[in-house]
Amino acid sequence: MATKAFLQQLISDQDRLNDLVEEAKMLAFQHGFVMRTQETPNSSEVVTYAPFTLFSTPVPKAFLLQALAVQTHVNTLVDKVSQDPDFLEEALAGTIQADDFTAKLFGIYKQVQQEGRRQSIVVGLNRCDYMMTQREDGTPSLKQIEINTIAAGAFGMADRLPVMHKHILRSAGLLEESECIQDIKRTPTMMGALAKAWELYGQQKAVILFLVEDFQTSKFDHRIIEKELWNRNITVIRRKFNEVARGGSLDADKNLFIDGLEVAVVYYRHGYMPGHYTEQAWDARLLMERSLAVKCPDISTHLAGTKKVQQVLARPGVLEKFFPDQPQVVEQVRATFAGLYTLDMGPEGDQAVSMALANPDKFVLKPQREGGGNNYFGEDIVRALQEVKGDERRAAYILMDRIQPRTEQNILLSRGLPVKLSTVCSEIGVLGAYVRHGGEMVLNEAADHFLRTKSIEHNDAGIYSGITVIDSSLII
Amino acid sequence: MATKAFLQQLISDQDRLNDLVEEAKMLAFQHGFVMRTQETPNSSEVVTYAPFTLFSTPVPKAFLLQALAVQTHVNTLVDKVSQDPDFLEEALAGTIQADDFTAKLFGIYKQVQQEGRRQSIVVGLNRCDYMMTQREDGTPSLKQIEINTIAAGAFGMADRLPVMHKHILRSAGLLEESECIQDIKRTPTMMGALAKAWELYGQQKAVILFLVEDFQTSKFDHRIIEKELWNRNITVIRRKFNEVARGGSLDADKNLFIDGLEVAVVYYRHGYMPGHYTEQAWDARLLMERSLAVKCPDISTHLAGTKKVQQVLARPGVLEKFFPDQPQVVEQVRATFAGLYTLDMGPEGDQAVSMALANPDKFVLKPQREGGGNNYFGEDIVRALQEVKGDERRAAYILMDRIQPRTEQNILLSRGLPVKLSTVCSEIGVLGAYVRHGGEMVLNEAADHFLRTKSIEHNDAGIYSGITVIDSSLII
Repeated sequence: MATKAFLQQLISDQDRLNDLVEEAKMLAFQHGFVMRTQETPNSSEVVTYAPFTLFSTPVPKAFLLQALAVQTHVNTLVDKVSQDPDFLEEALAGTIQADDFTAKLFGIYKQVQQEGRRQSIVVGLNRCDYMMTQREDGTPSLKQIEINTIAAGAFGMADRLPVMHKHILRSAGLLEESECIQDIKRTPTMMGALAKAWELYGQQKAVILFLVEDFQTSKFDHRIIEKELWNRNITVIRRKFNEVARGGSLDADKNLFIDGLEVAVVYYRHGYMPGHYTEQAWDARLLMERSLAVKCPDISTHLAGTKKVQQVLARPGVLEKFFPDQPQVVEQVRATFAGLYTLDMGPEGDQAVSMALANPDKFVLKPQREGGGNNYFGEDIVRALQEVKGDERRAAYILMDRIQPRTEQNILLSRGLPVKLSTVCSEIGVLGAYVRHGGEMVLNEAADHFLRTKSIEHNDAGIYSGITVIDSSLII
Repeated sequence: MATKAFLQQLISDQDRLNDLVEEAKMLAFQHGFVMRTQETPNSSEVVTYAPFTLFSTPVPKAFLLQALAVQTHVNTLVDKVSQDPDFLEEALAGTIQADDFTAKLFGIYKQVQQEGRRQSIVVGLNRCDYMMTQREDGTPSLKQIEINTIAAGAFGMADRLPVMHKHILRSAGLLEESECIQDIKRTPTMMGALAKAWELYGQQKAVILFLVEDFQTSKFDHRIIEKELWNRNITVIRRKFNEVARGGSLDADKNLFIDGLEVAVVYYRHGYMPGHYTEQAWDARLLMERSLAVKCPDISTHLAGTKKVQQVLARPGVLEKFFPDQPQVVEQVRATFAGLYTLDMGPEGDQAVSMALANPDKFVLKPQREGGGNNYFGEDIVRALQEVKGDERRAAYILMDRIQPRTEQNILLSRGLPVKLSTVCSEIGVLGAYVRHGGEMVLNEAADHFLRTKSIEHNDAGIYSGITVIDSSLII
């Protein structure tokens, strides 16, 4: 592995470091490991490399095995939660009062519930994020950070990284280490699930719709995964919310048509943050959710991925409800949970507030948001809680134990970022895919993992912010 | 094929055209069909796509067969010319008087000749450029434009184009046509010759030096071809002229060392235009030419590729001198020659001047330059000749029949260029590689072809100027 001694030596030899970094960037461009620039997010005239680590970050094998083993159970859990209206309603009751975005989503959920006649095919593509830490007794421990049930991206790009990392290690003369990098492909499994859903929908001419963002810097990531579908002779179309609002309609049977094309599956790569929605976008979302198109995820599965649900699932007895007679599964899943605390109104929430204010550095304050960059740490927790602690607004958040992550040394490469040795921590993102048809799980798989690595100077960030970068693991 | 009717229809459907162009650009980035930007030629932070045609341009099979059949003879001819001091001296006598650059090259040539003890291994990588035209009776005809014996580039990138063109045709719904595109790889043959020369040099630890330009926009093209050498476990280093001047030296046996590394082969990707040379660069060139490193090309082969030599070769009886007892070869090679006329002082040159001034649109006036953009057409010929016709300066040029090229319709993609239907003409660039060891040709191959296509609004341009673009042929 790129040991600390090796990295120290490399960083002190500026010419050699520059050569290796240049080599790495050229490799990125040669392997299509690219993204559009912030300046021209909707143009393909110039591109930059997607942010990545110069070297694979070491990950102990035991952590990976644990995370991978639990993934199909996580898939099952998400799916069961999505099918439990009472649970969702009760879990999210306080959040809905305090958080407009969750309330809007929940409104669509209720309307779809009431209308009845729903699509019986469900497809889920999840990414479960973990951090590596250690217990107070020093033994290693894996902690779930969150479950992403919508727009869990970057796996297309991640597929291209191991071969680059292998090459970089060889260029650095670390031949033995280069052999330890596994060339994992996650995309075929993930897209296999979408293809299965499309197949079950049963219309050869129907398309899969990628619901995409207005600023499409990550279009190249999408293309890698689209290609998997094209290779299976499935037509993929890309539309923004406003395009669906303009060109989308339901026929009498509630089949979804966009610009004359029947849509078998809607795959959301966007729509996970309040800022993604205009009134027109909400209309488009409602139209799609009401339709018979398979949604990935449907509105109930989207809600099953909220932080609040994550927190409720960690309460004593809740996992047991979803896995009756499977104590081993309960134990396995629960072992990955960090301490999670409600901030709903009531004595339990009051206690969590006091706890957080007394020791803010021991916690993370999380709103119901995906995409990174939204969490509060340290003194920001105090400021935020001081403002909302006395009323229902606090229920928009949950509180979580702050994890002291295992750290390594690495060099982060992102356009414009100075090249330097950083102390980094990695999140293991384990991918899961499942398809349910009526009452039957017809596909439930773990699609391996990739890393998202950041300098520990940064507490929290999204993958395309240029601070968190894509990484592959060197299994040790 | 993308017929005129199809292209007309496409160009009138702006949305479909934009989608297809976007698709093409994304494919370029995914296949590493990229170059650095003009703004940041020495940085790999952002890149743009290398210029290319949206579709493969149709080329009649007969032209290709003719051009390919003659290539090994062209290789032989270039090599024979390079070994004939009397011929070179006589052919270039007038040019040397008039053209400083050729004079400088010739000076190095003479010095190396006088020093004796030269490397007996010679490697040549040529690109012979042809235009398709028709005779006055309407029959098709292939005409040689020039032979490039130094830095004949872009074949690395060209290898990536057929798969892109295939994909674009499929995306446009032209499935049958997409099957007609051959996925030719030229780089393995071309680099096979360099590798052979390296092997004959016989020092396992010696490297191949790529002599590169100061502004390295085409570094990605180089990398593709470098990779072929790395795959054969040959170390490649890249140096600029000034780096060779600083770090290069000869040992007592005239072996070339750069920064401590023994150089088996110098591969010039630069140094073909006066602007490439400072005094330091001339020193570096001389050092390399004096050395026992194999040069690709050596100074005599460089001179064999001048326009003046091309013109002299077209004179009656000259080919016969190089191919005695091979009248069929002479006929085959000569059939590709366009009318070429000396402008040396004397009655023959006087006649050519009068001819050009009387009908400037029928000719091209060519200086001794590679790289495109240097030729004179129409009224520019008159202006140029009026100035130099009375003295020896005119010998810096040759005169050539202007070819009325076969045209097609296509769409050129180059950063910043508006997307529009253009009437284009293509040059067929046929690649050739040979290795001679002493008196024996140990390798002599044609490495297939690619196209360089330009809008006929432009008379002449280099591949990286954004006007001439890389193309693949749709064989009809």
